[in-house]
Amino acid sequence: MRLDRYTVGTYSPGATFWQQVAWYYLGSPLVSSYWIVDSSFKCWVLRCFGAKMGEGVRIKPGLKVKFPWRFVVGDFVWLGENCWIDNVALVTIESHTCLSQDVYLCTGNHDWSSSSFQLKDTPIHIGESCWIAARSSIGPGVTVGRGAVLCLGSIAGRSLAPMMIYAGNPAQPIKERHITD
Amino acid sequence: MRLDRYTVGTYSPGATFWQQVAWYYLGSPLVSSYWIVDSSFKCWVLRCFGAKMGEGVRIKPGLKVKFPWRFVVGDFVWLGENCWIDNVALVTIESHTCLSQDVYLCTGNHDWSSSSFQLKDTPIHIGESCWIAARSSIGPGVTVGRGAVLCLGSIAGRSLAPMMIYAGNPAQPIKERHITD
Amino acid sequence: MRLDRYTVGTYSPGATFWQQVAWYYLGSPLVSSYWIVDSSFKCWVLRCFGAKMGEGVRIKPGLKVKFPWRFVVGDFVWLGENCWIDNVALVTIESHTCLSQDVYLCTGNHDWSSSSFQLKDTPIHIGESCWIAARSSIGPGVTVGRGAVLCLGSIAGRSLAPMMIYAGNPAQPIKERHITD
Repeated sequence: MRLDRYTVGTYSPGATFWQQVAWYYLGSPLVSSYWIVDSSFKCWVLRCFGAKMGEGVRIKPGLKVKFPWRFVVGDFVWLGENCWIDNVALVTIESHTCLSQDVYLCTGNHDWSSSSFQLKDTPIHIGESCWIAARSSIGPGVTVGRGAVLCLGSIAGRSLAPMMIYAGNPAQPIKERHITD
Repeated sequence: MRLDRYTVGTYSPGATFWQQVAWYYLGSPLVSSYWIVDSSFKCWVLRCFGAKMGEGVRIKPGLKVKFPWRFVVGDFVWLGENCWIDNVALVTIESHTCLSQDVYLCTGNHDWSSSSFQLKDTPIHIGESCWIAARSSIGPGVTVGRGAVLCLGSIAGRSLAPMMIYAGNPAQPIKERHITD
Repeated sequence: MRLDRYTVGTYSPGATFWQQVAWYYLGSPLVSSYWIVDSSFKCWVLRCFGAKMGEGVRIKPGLKVKFPWRFVVGDFVWLGENCWIDNVALVTIESHTCLSQDVYLCTGNHDWSSSSFQLKDTPIHIGESCWIAARSSIGPGVTVGRGAVLCLGSIAGRSLAPMMIYAGNPAQPIKERHITD
């Protein structure tokens, strides 16, 4: 592997240089801020930079979003304290889903069989009514089925089935989820 | 699950609105500060907001405490760099225990079988002479027995037996601890 | 265990008190800065404090280095966003190696069989052309063989063989790496 020969393949950031600069130095600090706690304002900032944000979204302090123009969020979604949406590729979060504190969504991968370490960016899709618990991470290309739960500190490198509860590193299915009311 | 129908059940934050605001905008930034490195001062700030702090407690930079009025710490405890005490419920740390860098203590849970995703807050109790190593996490309701060790990056969702060494995600007992002097 | 009897054994920080203060309050904030994005400048600051930095090193925002005078980095190395080099002992990273976001390298250990909890500092050595993926951690004394890969969120407490891919907590070998071009 030779990082001086690194290539990004067909990848493009999806915004102009100045849009990226404005997001990095202005939009992102506002959305990440601990001093500003108003979710509506943070949603508005994200929308100004191209994110699709539903109604009733709650944003906690410390949220980091790489590229808001690749961020699609449904209604009544919670984005917990210090969550990191590392979305070089599209991240979609459907309605009524909760990302707890310190969750990390990683869409960037590299071709480890190539000496140029080519970038591979693959979307993450999280279905409706999921709970991604604190400190867990989701890898590139993962689809999380409707109603799935990923427990504290778990690492999901593969897709998660609907209404199933996963834990561990690597995340394993531990039991089915039943909503009883 | 419908997050627009979210309920907190019997949970209450345990302090007035203005106490919470004062902690969030004044106390917490002082305790978390990298510029201030004096542990005694940080213990004093925590005590002003209701924490019980023993003598000889060492606080490293970046410590985050959610609710100091639900924080009880013994003597000669170490709270490492970037530790996060996410204590919506009571967290107790007994004397001579070390929390290393980036440890996360999580007391908040949700009822995943309820469509209202009801909040369940459960205390964490860490006994005397324990070592919670760097980047490890402890989940809601866990009791850590006297002298137990949780190794680098481990996730403890269940209680840990005294004088036992645990590692992995989920954390597994790997051997007994013997103090030889 | 009695933390009031803590000893550091033969450990010494390797720099004068004022060098440590200058690094902590001046050098480290410059290197960690999100506002400064120029890798060459950050390499220069690290060199001023004793680090050996090769050519073409890329440093992303949020890099934390404990002791730059115990940091040796080859050519065309990438140090990802929020990486934490917790190097009380020497950390060596050879050429063409990539540390992704939020990687944690931990060189500090404690003697858990001693009631004085004596500090044990042991170096980390990462070979050429490795990829330490996002959110993974490497423990004290670990050697990472040339071309090895440590996957998303993995925890390596033991040394990694060359050209092998590891995942999980604890990290397990999952397959051999082949570079096909």
